[in-house]
Amino acid sequence: MISREIFNEAQKKAVEYFDKAHIAITEEEINKIEVADFGLGDLWNTGLEILTYVNTERVCAKELVVLPNQTCPEHRHPAIGDYAGKEETFRCRYGIIYLYVDGEPTRKRAVDPPNGKYTVFHEIVLNEGQQYTLKPNTKHWFKAGPAGAVISEFSTSSYDEGDIFTDENITRAPEVD
Amino acid sequence: MISREIFNEAQKKAVEYFDKAHIAITEEEINKIEVADFGLGDLWNTGLEILTYVNTERVCAKELVVLPNQTCPEHRHPAIGDYAGKEETFRCRYGIIYLYVDGEPTRKRAVDPPNGKYTVFHEIVLNEGQQYTLKPNTKHWFKAGPAGAVISEFSTSSYDEGDIFTDENITRAPEVD
Repeated sequence: MISREIFNEAQKKAVEYFDKAHIAITEEEINKIEVADFGLGDLWNTGLEILTYVNTERVCAKELVVLPNQTCPEHRHPAIGDYAGKEETFRCRYGIIYLYVDGEPTRKRAVDPPNGKYTVFHEIVLNEGQQYTLKPNTKHWFKAGPAGAVISEFSTSSYDEGDIFTDENITRAPEVD
Repeated sequence: MISREIFNEAQKKAVEYFDKAHIAITEEEINKIEVADFGLGDLWNTGLEILTYVNTERVCAKELVVLPNQTCPEHRHPAIGDYAGKEETFRCRYGIIYLYVDGEPTRKRAVDPPNGKYTVFHEIVLNEGQQYTLKPNTKHWFKAGPAGAVISEFSTSSYDEGDIFTDENITRAPEVD
């Protein structure tokens, strides 16, 4: 559960990051910025701010704000019925993002995850202008450095409710008090 | 046919526009910027500079640079076999873009097309942070104002060779001398 106060504060910070990244958004879009705490009630550590530009039956594009040291927790996008699962590309627009996927664990990781269940530790560092494409159903999590980050996500359709989180305490649907 | 000199000049201008728009691209990406004159040999009037971030069998994302008063000529993206045709969203990142689609012709258009065959004149003006989604097979063309523009394109897969241009003198495949 996110309190209205924290929700508003997170939206305001997200707008500041869009400004830092020189990403123009409309007044109407400011109110559409989603604040996700993944049900853990610890937004500044485990959370994400999301502006969805478009999400049709075929294609989706979002801008993600990852606040300083904030983590989007480990999850995957499985197939749902006829839908092959979400394929997504993350492109770093501002700051540095540390992305972790399945594979040989990186010995000296740049960052540690927050409390919770994490199982993949192969590190991919994305600086501004760098990107990485994830096939469907690939476990992943990501964290911003101390300066925060803004990431563009280009993907097939998003069905957030179908996401599977490694930590069973996590729920994707936002609950704002 | 684009001369190597004009190709290089267009790529250099495109990089300047990415800078103006504060869009970070890598050194490797600079060399991947496509310069399209659509076979008309009149790039500064009819042309487009394109950086494709990702183009898989399911999803595509590009950054388009439209130089001052440059026009991307009228075309549509039809179905190809089992593929339903390209659905695309244009989002203006920098400058102003004038987009024309089928519908009631706008009486006082902001801009005129260059020489060539144009048949749709319903005007949509996209300022920074504004976007528009086109369904497959919708005729469209667009032109930048005197300050140029940068547009993000979020779409299903791109098969440029399947595009149908209204002007039969146009060819999509670039030919660089």
